[in-house]
Amino acid sequence: MISFCQFGAGRIGAIHAANIARHPAARLSTVVDVDRAAAARLAERHGAAIGEAAAALADPAVDAVLIASSTDTHAGLIEAAARAGKAVFCEKPIDLDRRRVEACLAVVARAGVPLMVGFNRRFDPNFAKLHGALRAGRVGKLELLAITSRDPAPPPLAYVKVSGGLFRDMMIHDLDMARWLLGEEPVELYAAASCLVDPAIGAAGDVDSAVVTLKTASGALAQISNSRRASYGYDQRVEVLGAAGMLTAGNQLESTLEISSAAGVVAEKPQPFFLERYAEAYRRELDHFIAAVAGKTLPEISGADGLKALVLADACVESAKTGRPVRL
Amino acid sequence: MISFCQFGAGRIGAIHAANIARHPAARLSTVVDVDRAAAARLAERHGAAIGEAAAALADPAVDAVLIASSTDTHAGLIEAAARAGKAVFCEKPIDLDRRRVEACLAVVARAGVPLMVGFNRRFDPNFAKLHGALRAGRVGKLELLAITSRDPAPPPLAYVKVSGGLFRDMMIHDLDMARWLLGEEPVELYAAASCLVDPAIGAAGDVDSAVVTLKTASGALAQISNSRRASYGYDQRVEVLGAAGMLTAGNQLESTLEISSAAGVVAEKPQPFFLERYAEAYRRELDHFIAAVAGKTLPEISGADGLKALVLADACVESAKTGRPVRL
Amino acid sequence: MISFCQFGAGRIGAIHAANIARHPAARLSTVVDVDRAAAARLAERHGAAIGEAAAALADPAVDAVLIASSTDTHAGLIEAAARAGKAVFCEKPIDLDRRRVEACLAVVARAGVPLMVGFNRRFDPNFAKLHGALRAGRVGKLELLAITSRDPAPPPLAYVKVSGGLFRDMMIHDLDMARWLLGEEPVELYAAASCLVDPAIGAAGDVDSAVVTLKTASGALAQISNSRRASYGYDQRVEVLGAAGMLTAGNQLESTLEISSAAGVVAEKPQPFFLERYAEAYRRELDHFIAAVAGKTLPEISGADGLKALVLADACVESAKTGRPVRL
Amino acid sequence: MISFCQFGAGRIGAIHAANIARHPAARLSTVVDVDRAAAARLAERHGAAIGEAAAALADPAVDAVLIASSTDTHAGLIEAAARAGKAVFCEKPIDLDRRRVEACLAVVARAGVPLMVGFNRRFDPNFAKLHGALRAGRVGKLELLAITSRDPAPPPLAYVKVSGGLFRDMMIHDLDMARWLLGEEPVELYAAASCLVDPAIGAAGDVDSAVVTLKTASGALAQISNSRRASYGYDQRVEVLGAAGMLTAGNQLESTLEISSAAGVVAEKPQPFFLERYAEAYRRELDHFIAAVAGKTLPEISGADGLKALVLADACVESAKTGRPVRL
Repeated sequence: MISFCQFGAGRIGAIHAANIARHPAARLSTVVDVDRAAAARLAERHGAAIGEAAAALADPAVDAVLIASSTDTHAGLIEAAARAGKAVFCEKPIDLDRRRVEACLAVVARAGVPLMVGFNRRFDPNFAKLHGALRAGRVGKLELLAITSRDPAPPPLAYVKVSGGLFRDMMIHDLDMARWLLGEEPVELYAAASCLVDPAIGAAGDVDSAVVTLKTASGALAQISNSRRASYGYDQRVEVLGAAGMLTAGNQLESTLEISSAAGVVAEKPQPFFLERYAEAYRRELDHFIAAVAGKTLPEISGADGLKALVLADACVESAKTGRPVRL
Repeated sequence: MISFCQFGAGRIGAIHAANIARHPAARLSTVVDVDRAAAARLAERHGAAIGEAAAALADPAVDAVLIASSTDTHAGLIEAAARAGKAVFCEKPIDLDRRRVEACLAVVARAGVPLMVGFNRRFDPNFAKLHGALRAGRVGKLELLAITSRDPAPPPLAYVKVSGGLFRDMMIHDLDMARWLLGEEPVELYAAASCLVDPAIGAAGDVDSAVVTLKTASGALAQISNSRRASYGYDQRVEVLGAAGMLTAGNQLESTLEISSAAGVVAEKPQPFFLERYAEAYRRELDHFIAAVAGKTLPEISGADGLKALVLADACVESAKTGRPVRL
Repeated sequence: MISFCQFGAGRIGAIHAANIARHPAARLSTVVDVDRAAAARLAERHGAAIGEAAAALADPAVDAVLIASSTDTHAGLIEAAARAGKAVFCEKPIDLDRRRVEACLAVVARAGVPLMVGFNRRFDPNFAKLHGALRAGRVGKLELLAITSRDPAPPPLAYVKVSGGLFRDMMIHDLDMARWLLGEEPVELYAAASCLVDPAIGAAGDVDSAVVTLKTASGALAQISNSRRASYGYDQRVEVLGAAGMLTAGNQLESTLEISSAAGVVAEKPQPFFLERYAEAYRRELDHFIAAVAGKTLPEISGADGLKALVLADACVESAKTGRPVRL
Repeated sequence: MISFCQFGAGRIGAIHAANIARHPAARLSTVVDVDRAAAARLAERHGAAIGEAAAALADPAVDAVLIASSTDTHAGLIEAAARAGKAVFCEKPIDLDRRRVEACLAVVARAGVPLMVGFNRRFDPNFAKLHGALRAGRVGKLELLAITSRDPAPPPLAYVKVSGGLFRDMMIHDLDMARWLLGEEPVELYAAASCLVDPAIGAAGDVDSAVVTLKTASGALAQISNSRRASYGYDQRVEVLGAAGMLTAGNQLESTLEISSAAGVVAEKPQPFFLERYAEAYRRELDHFIAAVAGKTLPEISGADGLKALVLADACVESAKTGRPVRL
């Protein structure tokens, strides 16, 4: 039985806590949150206790730490947990500053504990099947990759301001996805971005629409398309052109209902947002981490993966700002 | 060069005339219609002459006769053309009366001319591919067949009254399709029908909604679903369950455009009616007949096929009226 | 907190037990099964005790009984639970004999306890949305209904022999679905059936392929298509033609992956069987029952619904045997 | 009756000649080709004469010239035809050299004749419907555009060498499509390209896989994806994200047949190549040009459009070579 201490009792924390609680080989022992009422509610729902960071990390009964608190706390908590010898699962990103991430990963390396970063989309059943088919050679070598990733609506402006911007907050998922599917590192990157959805986002120094081109050493080309607004729901699609065919993984619709009438054939919208679309991915991601903590596998997504995605996001920021490609 | 005399210059006649005219091995020599102005317009468009039935059939330069005039003229024209030694293509049905059809076919048999009945759907590229896949054993032996066939809107009431009724006018196409796909004759049939679309149709002694079950000697089961009204367009689908899989051939949509918005994912409607959906089928059907006249093949759809479909339609009428299955 | 005693620790019992256990307003207190080891395993997984029927039903701490044991035990357990004043959820069917069902329902009526029958498909999100759209008038009055329901492969022959046959075991779900969607009772029914999949099924006195036609007093027509074999997975679809359009609810595929190659565009198969396809339906069904026990709603599916579906299944058996329609 | 002289009797010439011949308001009077046998065959098929360029252009009975000969003859023929006062339809490109195009257009402008360039895809029914829906405001202002355009297989190497390269030969269609859909001119462009399909293409100085990013003054972003190889057929898709929704126009499949089996649900491939996919577009394009010659409309696609697409293609070549974006 792997005993978890979880930091963060917000929306994503609630998902992780429930997934820990339902896992036959895990239990949620402690919930820590600066909002003690939220921590108490979540802890009660799953028969856990509320706690303080230091005490929880010092508790030898705690095997693993799940970090779902605000981004600015991630690196510090990872380090503290690593030093305490705990296995660590941390929501992305480790930090918005690359040097801070590097320092944090050095601490983890010295501690020798497993660290997994929550790029949940790798565990989406659709993308995982696509990845498996690609690796199994179903369409030959990857030549062109296209990732479409659009949120239903922009986050609150207050969040935008501390998010690190579209590239580090939102596209970082797609950059990880690109690395995972390409199977080799991008060597060059070009980003173009605009503020089309809400001028307030531009006033805050961010963009809300962006496209990125990646190129690898072997010449494979990847395109990413991001928008903070898709009125039809959460749009999450991947397309791979290989030498022998094409793989696509599309959106999951809300149901299979279709209404045919004089207005056309109306299918349902894609699922509204990540809580719905990636519910199964969150479950599988945690199952994987628990198996890793139990020593049955290595974490699929390492701290180095977290760092590399951030490096790409930083390069996107630079490219979009300068208008020039960035060599990596 | 096969020279055609065509009877009938209406809507379906215009399609056949254009298909004759565009065929490299055929020419339209004469158009005959009781509406001489219509005949003249169609003849002029394709560089043909207008003519009279007797003279046209006596003309040794005429090789083939295409009959697209009103149903009550079909059998007489087939007989006259057969006696004149012409190859005959006739729009369905040969006649609404089974005995009249039998007498007509006897004349054709004595004359020894090729006769093809216009069950155009066998030449629809989608259904033809399905039929080919079925015969090629792609899904093993047929076990269950489902045919969905719905018109966008009822015909004019005046037409309903002379049409022979839904079973002989509309479902006869599906009964032919069923025979063609089943690959064996039905031995029992049950029909249930209602007047749901327009009470005036019921007042005229007809139905507008009907479902039929067919059973063959080998135990294969077929279901047909007909309605005179589908607000979303002309609905023409076939589904075959075989021992090793399922074949489906669906509607052709007006275009591939899809609009995703808060209202859902809206695809286009099926093509509106038979002129659009079966445009290619009409072309291929005529190509086939011309090849048959040229001696390159036997007509795919014989007079006996026309008769057998009518016998099934008659049985449907009887079953729907008595509420009892009919042994065939 | 509603406390459940569950009878049956097999495959479907495991699903219900997990759904009870995860429900915030319910707990699994006791598991009863003739296979005590199975009961013990399931009880342990969810922190429940194993028990005996009589003691469990006598326990005032038990509020509700969930019956997922073998069919021949259903009616007796329902009666015992009802007499003990417990709310009852019972897997379909109540019994295979209509008179036994009627006697059982009389006992339930006298006891005045809530009884719900597990026609789980009404809670499938796809069919529930279709039903909602139909009742909301999105396509006007229902005219034609088509239900396609095919198992991936036949059950073991031993099960076939005690199952009551295809109509009472398998099509009963579709008959309930038809009643639910039609919104009025069928007044006539015709069934045609064959043994095409496995002669051993025929030798056991059953059929494996069947189609049924239902007609209501208003003239609405329904078609059902059943097979014990669909090599492409569990095939569960509904189509409604209404005066103003068509509703369809199709299969849920295993993922959204598509592979385009020289072989065509290959989508995934439908989910393999009921455990996968109806996982969410089982959850929602239990949520509904728990809400009903808590007095928040009436059970969606009553004992009378269970009886009426059985009456239709019996009529199908009779029609398929005699070859004649049955008036209801 | 508009009388055409056509230059070029090859594959695309055959399509145009047939479309002229079938048009009720047009006739094919003369066919000119350096391959006189090919000219003779095409002329005979449509009842036209074969001719010489000078005589044909001097013939006052010729109203319009259709140029479907090899690219290096386009500009000269356009000029000669314009000077002779003929309306001109020319297959893309006008020339591979921008200055030559400018000089040619100056001649056309002085002559005051209508000139239309054959960017046939604007007349594809699917893309035309998408364009119409976009202009009608169905999804609000365009924010992100994605064009996917992949040939089934590379052209012969001999053609690659004289084609002007992937950007000027193949992507020029997509660049025109982008201008047409964006509704404003790109102000910046970035191209990345690789040789992944066939090293011989690289040895010939060309690329076979390319992605391009375009940005407009309003900040709209467009992505284009090109490959010379798609083993599943001709891949031609467009996607528009607007402020209020998304428009997509996908591939037309070879038929609607689907085969469901243990291997999955297999749909047909997209139509194999441009002759099939754009058959209707070629017809509509010529109908439009004939209407323009008849003075009923202005040509949808002017010489300036041909020039602007070439300027973009040139910029792609430069960007792919230098690795830097190009300001336009």
